[in-house]
Amino acid sequence: MDLKEVKTIPDIVVGRLPIYLLALQHMARDGRQITSSQELGERLGISAAQIRKDLSQFGEFGKQGTGYNIAYLIDQLRRILNLDRVWDIAVIGAGDIGHAIAGYQGFADRGFRVKMIFDNDPKKVGTKVRSFVVQDAANMVEEIRKEGIKVAMVAVPAQTAQEVADKLVEAGVVSILNYAPITLNLPPDVHVEYIDPLIHLQRMAYYLA
Amino acid sequence: MDLKEVKTIPDIVVGRLPIYLLALQHMARDGRQITSSQELGERLGISAAQIRKDLSQFGEFGKQGTGYNIAYLIDQLRRILNLDRVWDIAVIGAGDIGHAIAGYQGFADRGFRVKMIFDNDPKKVGTKVRSFVVQDAANMVEEIRKEGIKVAMVAVPAQTAQEVADKLVEAGVVSILNYAPITLNLPPDVHVEYIDPLIHLQRMAYYLA
Repeated sequence: MDLKEVKTIPDIVVGRLPIYLLALQHMARDGRQITSSQELGERLGISAAQIRKDLSQFGEFGKQGTGYNIAYLIDQLRRILNLDRVWDIAVIGAGDIGHAIAGYQGFADRGFRVKMIFDNDPKKVGTKVRSFVVQDAANMVEEIRKEGIKVAMVAVPAQTAQEVADKLVEAGVVSILNYAPITLNLPPDVHVEYIDPLIHLQRMAYYLA
Repeated sequence: MDLKEVKTIPDIVVGRLPIYLLALQHMARDGRQITSSQELGERLGISAAQIRKDLSQFGEFGKQGTGYNIAYLIDQLRRILNLDRVWDIAVIGAGDIGHAIAGYQGFADRGFRVKMIFDNDPKKVGTKVRSFVVQDAANMVEEIRKEGIKVAMVAVPAQTAQEVADKLVEAGVVSILNYAPITLNLPPDVHVEYIDPLIHLQRMAYYLA
């Protein structure tokens, strides 16, 4: 039975699952086998009750008093998050951020693999970024569609980000991680998340006074 | 009266304020003067009731039926978030991410200014990254303390991030934005936020099946 079909899980709960997964993977790497909602909670700054409630939405993963089996819970979270396979990614923009993404160690471990990188600058097209040859953004729709890629990271200037996003949707992309400091207008079935360092800095500034 | 002294505001509420601020600033730039919790909510995918509740924690910013004065609400949010001044930032790590941060347009507008950049690689120390000369990480504690910098961005490999963070705390930094894919162990009075593209990608993968 696919538990996800049974009911709609709030986005905010789904949003916490990768954080639980990461903490569990760190514990597994440290040789640990069992943990508790208390321990996870202290590590993550989330209440134990919240963690139990979040996980119980997807099934019964631990028993009162015995805790969670770390390896089992990792497997279950990966299955729930569709991370029991590897998703190819197209990166748009071969600037500083594009370079950082292409060089980032740890995508494969966590369910993703950068597959291609595009730029519209003739000086960049054909050059190498890490192990990737930068492709011409003019061929983006065709190439992404041909490979059946569903996930893209947008690392272009704000003024071209909407145009790029529209092309990605045309190419069949349904998940976009946007580094450009602009809100994208997209069809409701396309998921977008934003990486904006200023939002984080501003949030912390509240406590700075 | 400083409203912040009156009661403790939940972190999750504080976390939404920069998102409201950004949307309001976009509206102001479009020449708009009045908005409503409904309009903000539709734009941000947050319920109007939640927005009204969040803002009411800090005072009375709008009247039923007349909406919010955008310029006034921007001023109030900037004051609440301590963004009615500019905070200097130290960047640690002059790699791809460090370059991207140094070149990012829009810090100043939003309350921050990159002031110095450090690296421990002798080949990088003394070279220029945008308008900054890369300083030797060995002098980090002294230089940051001398300038009274409270905010830092960590863009070093995972294996050196904890050591760097410890030095930042020693130098008096109390807000750290960490790009290294590792959880930092820090005193409770130091705020840390993480930028991890994989967390965002994994969250969206839930909807990919």
